[in-house]
Amino acid sequence: MQKIMIQLNNELEDLNNKILKMGGLVETAIHKSIRALLDNDTQLAQEVRDEENIINALDVEIDKKSMDLIALMQPVAGDMRFVVTAMKLTTDLERIGDKAADIAKRVIELNKGERTNFDIDIIRISNLVENMTESAILSFIKRDAVLARQVIRSDDNVDNLTGLAMEKIISLMSKDTGIINEAMKMHSIMRYLERIADHATNISEMVIYLIEGDIIRHTDIKNN
Amino acid sequence: MQKIMIQLNNELEDLNNKILKMGGLVETAIHKSIRALLDNDTQLAQEVRDEENIINALDVEIDKKSMDLIALMQPVAGDMRFVVTAMKLTTDLERIGDKAADIAKRVIELNKGERTNFDIDIIRISNLVENMTESAILSFIKRDAVLARQVIRSDDNVDNLTGLAMEKIISLMSKDTGIINEAMKMHSIMRYLERIADHATNISEMVIYLIEGDIIRHTDIKNN
Repeated sequence: MQKIMIQLNNELEDLNNKILKMGGLVETAIHKSIRALLDNDTQLAQEVRDEENIINALDVEIDKKSMDLIALMQPVAGDMRFVVTAMKLTTDLERIGDKAADIAKRVIELNKGERTNFDIDIIRISNLVENMTESAILSFIKRDAVLARQVIRSDDNVDNLTGLAMEKIISLMSKDTGIINEAMKMHSIMRYLERIADHATNISEMVIYLIEGDIIRHTDIKNN
Repeated sequence: MQKIMIQLNNELEDLNNKILKMGGLVETAIHKSIRALLDNDTQLAQEVRDEENIINALDVEIDKKSMDLIALMQPVAGDMRFVVTAMKLTTDLERIGDKAADIAKRVIELNKGERTNFDIDIIRISNLVENMTESAILSFIKRDAVLARQVIRSDDNVDNLTGLAMEKIISLMSKDTGIINEAMKMHSIMRYLERIADHATNISEMVIYLIEGDIIRHTDIKNN
C-alpha cells in the first residue's frame, strides 16, 4: 500500500513538472511574440511559430499521462481533482500558445509592409496580459487562491484597454483607408491579447476549484 | 458487484443524456443566432443571449457529475475514456454557445443602424457550420468515427469561405468608410462562425479518441 502511495506521489509530481514546463513554454511564446511586434522582428516571430509544435506535443503528452494515471492508480479526492484540473488547464495553456503563434503570424505579415503608428499602449496591455498568464500559472504552482482571484479581477481591465485600442484602430482606418489591411491585422492582435487574458482567467478559475473544490465558472466572482 | 455495474451504467447513461441535452441547446443557439442575422430579428437574438445561462449551467453540472462519477465509481478503460471525453467535450460545447451569443450580440448592434448587403453567402457558410456542429454531436451519440472524420475534413472549407468573406468585407469598407462600424461587426460574425467550426472539429477529434483510444489532436488528419 505504501509502495503504491509513493508511486502515485511520484507520478503526480511528474505530471506537475510537465505542466510547469508547458507553462514556461507558453509564457516564453507570449513574451517573444510581443517582443517581435514591438521590435518588428520577423525572425523572432518565426521562432514562436516554429516552437508551437513543442507546446502542442506537451498538451497531448499531459492528457495521455493524466488518463493513464487515473486508470492505473485511481487517485481520490484532492489528487483526483488535481489530475482533472491538469487536463482542463492544459487545454487553455495550449490555446494561449495558439494565440501567441497567431500574433507572430500577424507580425510577419505586418513586417512585409509599411508600419503605421496606431498610438496604442501595446506595452501596457501586453504587460497586463503577460502578468495575468504568469500569475495564473503561479497560482497553480503555489495553490494560491488569492492570486488566482487577482487574475480574474484583472480581466475587465484588459477587456476595457483592448476595447479602446480596437476602437482607435477602427477610427484611424476610417480616416485613411490606405491602412485598412494593416489596421485589421493590428485589430486581430488586440483580439488575441484579449483572448489570452480570457484563458488566463479560465486557468485561475480552475485553480480555485482545485483548492476549494468549487466550480466558480459562470459565477460573477468580479463582484464577490 | 452486479449492482455496482448497473449503477455505473445508469450513471453513464444519465451523463450521456445530459450531454445530448447540452448539444441540442447549443445547436438551437447557433440556428437561432443565424436566423436572427438573416431576418434582422433583434428579439430572436435576445433570446439566444438569455438562453446562454442554461448552457453554462449544464456545463458546470456535467463537470461536477463527471468528477463525482470518477471519484465514487472508478470507471475503467472505455468507460473512463467516456467520462474524460464528456468533460472535455462540454468545454467546446460551452464555447460554441458563447460564440452563438456573441453573434446574437452583434446582430442586436447591427439592427440599430442601416444594413448593408455585403454580398456574402452567409447561408452556405452557416449551413456548413451548423452541419459540422450537428455531425460532431451525432458522431458522439453514435460513436461514429467515419462521421467524425468528415467533420474534421470540412474545417478547411469553412476556413476558406470565411476567409474570402472577411476579405470581401475589408475590400467593401475600404471603398466606403461610412460602413466601417457595420463591416467590423460582420467581420466578427464571420470569425465567430469560423471558431464554431474549430470547436466542432475539436469535438470530433475527441470522439475519435473515445472510439479508437488515440489522441489525434495536432496530427494532420486532413491528409490521412
